[in-house]
Amino acid sequence: MSLIIIGTVAFDAIETPFGKTDKIVGGAATYASLAASYFYNKAKIVAVVGDDFQQADIDIFTAHGIDTEGLQIKAGEKSFFWSGKYHNDMNSRDTLVTELNVLENFDPIIPESYQDCEYLMLGNLTPQVQQTVIKRLKNRPKLIVMDTMNFWMDIMMDDLLETIKMVDVLTINDAEARQLSGEYSLVKAAKKILGMGPKYLIIKKGEHGALLFHEDQIFSAPALPLAEVFDPTGAGDTFAGGFIGYLAKVGTINFNNMKNAIIYGSALASFCVEKFGTEKLLNLTDEEVAGRIQEFVSLSAFNIEL
Amino acid sequence: MSLIIIGTVAFDAIETPFGKTDKIVGGAATYASLAASYFYNKAKIVAVVGDDFQQADIDIFTAHGIDTEGLQIKAGEKSFFWSGKYHNDMNSRDTLVTELNVLENFDPIIPESYQDCEYLMLGNLTPQVQQTVIKRLKNRPKLIVMDTMNFWMDIMMDDLLETIKMVDVLTINDAEARQLSGEYSLVKAAKKILGMGPKYLIIKKGEHGALLFHEDQIFSAPALPLAEVFDPTGAGDTFAGGFIGYLAKVGTINFNNMKNAIIYGSALASFCVEKFGTEKLLNLTDEEVAGRIQEFVSLSAFNIEL
Repeated sequence: MSLIIIGTVAFDAIETPFGKTDKIVGGAATYASLAASYFYNKAKIVAVVGDDFQQADIDIFTAHGIDTEGLQIKAGEKSFFWSGKYHNDMNSRDTLVTELNVLENFDPIIPESYQDCEYLMLGNLTPQVQQTVIKRLKNRPKLIVMDTMNFWMDIMMDDLLETIKMVDVLTINDAEARQLSGEYSLVKAAKKILGMGPKYLIIKKGEHGALLFHEDQIFSAPALPLAEVFDPTGAGDTFAGGFIGYLAKVGTINFNNMKNAIIYGSALASFCVEKFGTEKLLNLTDEEVAGRIQEFVSLSAFNIEL
Repeated sequence: MSLIIIGTVAFDAIETPFGKTDKIVGGAATYASLAASYFYNKAKIVAVVGDDFQQADIDIFTAHGIDTEGLQIKAGEKSFFWSGKYHNDMNSRDTLVTELNVLENFDPIIPESYQDCEYLMLGNLTPQVQQTVIKRLKNRPKLIVMDTMNFWMDIMMDDLLETIKMVDVLTINDAEARQLSGEYSLVKAAKKILGMGPKYLIIKKGEHGALLFHEDQIFSAPALPLAEVFDPTGAGDTFAGGFIGYLAKVGTINFNNMKNAIIYGSALASFCVEKFGTEKLLNLTDEEVAGRIQEFVSLSAFNIEL
């Protein structure tokens, strides 16, 4: 069995109030697979890059035990490139450059060795590409987690709804949950979205944590208050990767494990933002991760005897 | 020993997307004392109204065991009046009318019978009036909780800082914490504000819950996701009243009790917004409160074994 993560592998150039980077390796599949690798050592990626992607860039994945057989390298083409500049509050950003390049005609080819997929993470991409991946897997995975964004709601809602219907867990932010449902109350929004197909809905609220909805149950996960947010790029993908990596490790899908998975995902995301790009995700120790989880426990525990 | 709550007692006219009210009894001291009365039956208010305030209005307090000896009734004058209209998102509102009336020259007189005060809640008022109350108490209370707002930061920061220096717990929202400290990160903001005098800082984040800071400890309390927010008026004051009422009941000030107090305050605030004005706060049963607390426990509990 395996965990497959599909998404962008890209070059990013990031500017924040704390500094700027040249082109560094980024993309949803990069952040998510690195995060997942801390819990599950058989993650496999499906993505596409150009021949500007170097062996050293691929080594980032292999060093973390991530299978890159599904990483297509297009000769004579360039990798997806994104450049953005964060404002002082770090909560909003301007996109300076978006060059789709290889992403424009991305056909997600699933290697035969990936057909044992039990856990599937669909990183943010066009709903059609996400759906194609599901259809190309001979057996329906045990768990399909889908990330998406407002952009697809704006321009291809029908395709999006069709794909949402096929997944188990949807992860979106609060504004997107409101847009997708047409409801301001997140409780009402969640009820509608759970009616669209997914059994679980995760609403990401950035510095305010995350909400998990399932049937009539709700879990509210805190975010760790941080003194410095150095670079928020990839935090959502890191969250999703840690989330599904933890579930793939424990192997049982239920509300309690989902709650823990959200805490693990949040913990990795809290590391991610402490340095530029993927830097902090490259060399975390088990002790660092356990220490951060302990901080989440202390942060939210209280003891009322009724 | 007793719990004193100082703040406005007022008439409010409220309009929300769900309806509107004529003049109803509102004000910070009203919400806070009603909330406190669920935990502590010797709350006493210090406030001022005009002779438009009827016996039936006073009965709201006495029915909840709240001592109104410190409620001054000014003959020939009118009570503070506020009218506001909430937008569709219920997170923002326009103030339509503010008539200070009796509040303009409010001199907070402390009855002799109030001098046993051990717990003092300073509802949002001018920093000078808040400070006067502290000075008029012969013995420094065991715990002073202060609420304030951005308005005083804009126009009388020096007076505000002088008052803040005298209290144990400060409650403000996230935007106010940023304004008061000049720091965007709430961790850095809290560090600066705890350096201004208070031993505890509560940052209220509305639908995103609340953060408690004390020395190097942080507690993140969830807010209960609600399907309907009918009228948010008074939610912050209800929170503060439930918070200090619970602490007055348990009688010991420490971080664990503060955490529980925040959950109790949040639970009462979640009731408050379910109906117009104080309506929902008038007749809660112990079972309803306990049930709501249980919802907070379920909402935030997770179990990770490290």
